[in-house]
Amino acid sequence: MYRTKNCGELRIADVEKNVTLSGWVQRARKMGGMTFVDLRDRYGVTQLVFSEDSNADLCEKASKLGREYVIQVSGTVRERQSKNANIPTGDIEIAAETLNVLNESKTPPFTIDNNTDGGDELRMKYRYLDLRRECVRKNLELRHKMTMEVRRYLDAQGFIEVETPMLIASTPEGARDFVVPSRMNPGQFYALPQSPQLFKQLLMVSGFDRYFQIVKCFRDEDLRADRQPEFTQIDCEMSFVEQEDVITLFEGMAKHLFKTIRNVELTEKFPRITWHDAMKYYGSDKPDTRFDMKFVELMDIMKGHGFGVFDSATYIGGICAKGAASYTRKQLDALTDFVRRPQIGAKGMVYARVESDGNVKSSVDKFYTQETLQQMKNAFAAEPGDLILILSGDDAMKTRKQLCELRLEVAEQLGMRDKNKFSCLWVVDFPLFEYSEEEGRYMAMHHPFTSPKPEDVPLLDGSDIGKVRANAYDMVINGVEVGGGSIRIFDSSLQNKMFRLLGFTPEQAQQQFGWLLDAFKYGAPPHGGLAYGLDRWVSLFAGLDSIRDCIAFPKNNSGRDTMIDAPSKLEPSQLEELNIALDIKENKIIS
Amino acid sequence: MYRTKNCGELRIADVEKNVTLSGWVQRARKMGGMTFVDLRDRYGVTQLVFSEDSNADLCEKASKLGREYVIQVSGTVRERQSKNANIPTGDIEIAAETLNVLNESKTPPFTIDNNTDGGDELRMKYRYLDLRRECVRKNLELRHKMTMEVRRYLDAQGFIEVETPMLIASTPEGARDFVVPSRMNPGQFYALPQSPQLFKQLLMVSGFDRYFQIVKCFRDEDLRADRQPEFTQIDCEMSFVEQEDVITLFEGMAKHLFKTIRNVELTEKFPRITWHDAMKYYGSDKPDTRFDMKFVELMDIMKGHGFGVFDSATYIGGICAKGAASYTRKQLDALTDFVRRPQIGAKGMVYARVESDGNVKSSVDKFYTQETLQQMKNAFAAEPGDLILILSGDDAMKTRKQLCELRLEVAEQLGMRDKNKFSCLWVVDFPLFEYSEEEGRYMAMHHPFTSPKPEDVPLLDGSDIGKVRANAYDMVINGVEVGGGSIRIFDSSLQNKMFRLLGFTPEQAQQQFGWLLDAFKYGAPPHGGLAYGLDRWVSLFAGLDSIRDCIAFPKNNSGRDTMIDAPSKLEPSQLEELNIALDIKENKIIS
Repeated sequence: MYRTKNCGELRIADVEKNVTLSGWVQRARKMGGMTFVDLRDRYGVTQLVFSEDSNADLCEKASKLGREYVIQVSGTVRERQSKNANIPTGDIEIAAETLNVLNESKTPPFTIDNNTDGGDELRMKYRYLDLRRECVRKNLELRHKMTMEVRRYLDAQGFIEVETPMLIASTPEGARDFVVPSRMNPGQFYALPQSPQLFKQLLMVSGFDRYFQIVKCFRDEDLRADRQPEFTQIDCEMSFVEQEDVITLFEGMAKHLFKTIRNVELTEKFPRITWHDAMKYYGSDKPDTRFDMKFVELMDIMKGHGFGVFDSATYIGGICAKGAASYTRKQLDALTDFVRRPQIGAKGMVYARVESDGNVKSSVDKFYTQETLQQMKNAFAAEPGDLILILSGDDAMKTRKQLCELRLEVAEQLGMRDKNKFSCLWVVDFPLFEYSEEEGRYMAMHHPFTSPKPEDVPLLDGSDIGKVRANAYDMVINGVEVGGGSIRIFDSSLQNKMFRLLGFTPEQAQQQFGWLLDAFKYGAPPHGGLAYGLDRWVSLFAGLDSIRDCIAFPKNNSGRDTMIDAPSKLEPSQLEELNIALDIKENKIIS
Repeated sequence: MYRTKNCGELRIADVEKNVTLSGWVQRARKMGGMTFVDLRDRYGVTQLVFSEDSNADLCEKASKLGREYVIQVSGTVRERQSKNANIPTGDIEIAAETLNVLNESKTPPFTIDNNTDGGDELRMKYRYLDLRRECVRKNLELRHKMTMEVRRYLDAQGFIEVETPMLIASTPEGARDFVVPSRMNPGQFYALPQSPQLFKQLLMVSGFDRYFQIVKCFRDEDLRADRQPEFTQIDCEMSFVEQEDVITLFEGMAKHLFKTIRNVELTEKFPRITWHDAMKYYGSDKPDTRFDMKFVELMDIMKGHGFGVFDSATYIGGICAKGAASYTRKQLDALTDFVRRPQIGAKGMVYARVESDGNVKSSVDKFYTQETLQQMKNAFAAEPGDLILILSGDDAMKTRKQLCELRLEVAEQLGMRDKNKFSCLWVVDFPLFEYSEEEGRYMAMHHPFTSPKPEDVPLLDGSDIGKVRANAYDMVINGVEVGGGSIRIFDSSLQNKMFRLLGFTPEQAQQQFGWLLDAFKYGAPPHGGLAYGLDRWVSLFAGLDSIRDCIAFPKNNSGRDTMIDAPSKLEPSQLEELNIALDIKENKIIS
């Protein structure tokens, strides 16, 4: 037996006990006639003491232990002389009697410590050492606890977890698929699922009534900080439900997670905002509502006073940063630079301070009377000491998105985005379609199976289908879309109309979704569902900036796992067996 | 709201309540002035009654409902005149007051009933309808319950579920990988994991101490009845453990599953048998021990009496089928045909009946005295009425495997393989290596990281490494290997020796497993683990003959999903983006 106790469980009540511990040497230091070793495992750190007086050889051996050596030690628990209140085992130490080196260790390339000296790349290459750090391991322990609680909640609500297949068929609609050549079916490929969407709808047709799955999904997209080629969804679907049923049940799940994981009791119903209002007041379909700072539109007040930029704008709007009138010119210039960055793309920024006497002092004073500026102030309900920031542009939606970025930046600067504060809301009434300039046609905003609101169905026959609202909903927490879903179409004729509006010929619809459409002919129940992004939930609860830190073995921005060096080349015989050949365009090799 | 109750929950205590139900029409029948409809959902079946007297139109409408129509009905619960004791809702019915057809259904291609008329192929093509059958859905409900219990048990034991990546690197050793071309890394491929083996070992290096994962694994093998290209493992690993620790913990899990799922209390320790004995007595490393019928070797007794077949054999062995002396000549001929089938490959079978007077009457009487036959009888401890069946051959291992098939077949015929009886055991002391005729070298019987038994380590330097036993163990229930695992090598020099013995050059070992070997240099703890096959566990508990029936959407023997028609062809643009081209050999197109 390698141990009788772990390194985190011994307390003052255990004094005098004989114990055996195993673990990693956090550090070993010689002091006077003693060697102190901090022994670490998943459960904690325990101090070992070797004394020259009782066993000089052993004490000498202990002093030579390197960092991260794996050792087994037996000894007696005793009370410490100088206690360490910072760790749960800080009242005791082990007077070591035997020492067995189970394995040696090379010097790690970075310190195994919450405040490590290792950079991102190094830590990813040695992820197995990075995972030894408590702050990283804790994220994965949290992830485990969250999935346990999700399953407990959904199981108690009558949901059945069903595994849907990973090797499915590629569909051209949507994002890019990862594909898998089939050796047994030469020239044909499986695709890895972007989500189990169609299968969960089939399970509803099968009468499973309440389905869930915590499941890996795959998307071959160019990566960003919060994107991974493989990610995990909490995927759910229910039958015989309306939007309200789904929202109620999954709001309940969110509250269950807040209670069990974060010990936060959320008793109020989550606020709801329409997509239209979210765009109008926050310029985003996932507004961060930990703080207010809503947009105020200023076209009526600010247009037509001779300031060319505003006079030619189709949208003028701003935010009021409470108490930020003290921003220096330098800070304001930095904000202007911020909104001018190509990623954001604003042309400039107008600012106005409300002075202590109530007067408004702006960067465009020469165009506006104090009276107009006071009108503006009132539109914001701004008070002395507040700072007003205004953007304008010739595309309302684009300008709102720029203003959204500014709002988030200012809130960040003002400390309004506290990671331990949570603001949850539902965004509802999404448009069913969005117009794609690129494709020159309307596309499904969610997917082609999303149901329009019953009262908007007549609009499908009209000239402006952009106005049709969907029975779709997203849950947003602190500006992060943690999940979303919709009520699905279960009526074949409505589904066919949707495909027609999306530009599918009946043949194309049949070719791509034929098996689902066929299934729907055999008694599809009304149904709807939701998918939560597990990685995002965990990041949010762990207070992380990137989902990468809550994934055990993430990939980098090139989709590479630098630790195992994947992807990699195949043997020619493997390619031959799979009936494929490499066909790399020359410019790709160079680039 | 589509329903206030489901179709399985109403009881006599609910009489007089007004309820709304939704579900599928199992059948509708007109009798006298009434229409009776059996309404089905996941939770059960409830009888609806429409009466001409109270609403003739509604009654008429109900009588026209087709099978599998989706309807919503409101009405009053009342006590049935003629109760149905076979279903939990059999005491009541709903006097229907409204009827809303939510969706129509085409006539299903087979009856949605436990005793369906649909053949395998048809049911797979319409799997979403097959899943409506209670007997199929129950298997998936069982699967859900089992995974919940597995997680409860392991969580309570301090295990953390960690998701390991699905897009990893291909390793030539082992079975064939499914691969995924990387668009972002032209010419390179990911592989889908055959198991998370290396990652779970890394997690032990990371100090996770106790890891598990219920995880999809992939193997591109030619398929058999109990193989699927994707399958699910309960994958576990522990640090600072010896074989006994792992066996104890996972025997505990098996007992927990038997108790919570099958309500079977297993109090005894599971028996253990060495691999050597399992081969000797059962000709299999996964013996079915629901019945005894151990092999008895007969070389000493039966060789050298002039019966050429036995005289030239290097193995003669048999089984004693209790009370089967009444087998007719026809039955015995059928058994002989059975062992002669090419899949089994025996040349013939000798039989001997023990008659009521104790005399033995055999098919080779002319070569043996009654005295010799009595010796043989005694070797089996056979009694009057018993039947002895004997095989022989020039390869002991092959003949034992033939005898194993015979043993299972006879037991099947004698009704000894009751699916509601469970016999669990551990097979231990597997050989570390097995000689591959094909490769002309020793191969790892499990994988190259399996630890030899410490007492056998010196044998690694000897001439017969085939004798080295591994710290490896399989759990076998009713002849099914439900799981297996081993203690791993955590010492670099021992690992290097293993690679050398397996014919790897240091460069090859480094190329294929370098990242794991590197990780092991930074303080690897002693560790070991086990993986259970979830599909097999569920099949066993559900009493199924194939794992297919406990998988929601399985693939057929060509690796195809006939419902969604996967795999399928890609668009040329997809191939181009992935930097691959089809390269199908002509003979493959034809075949």
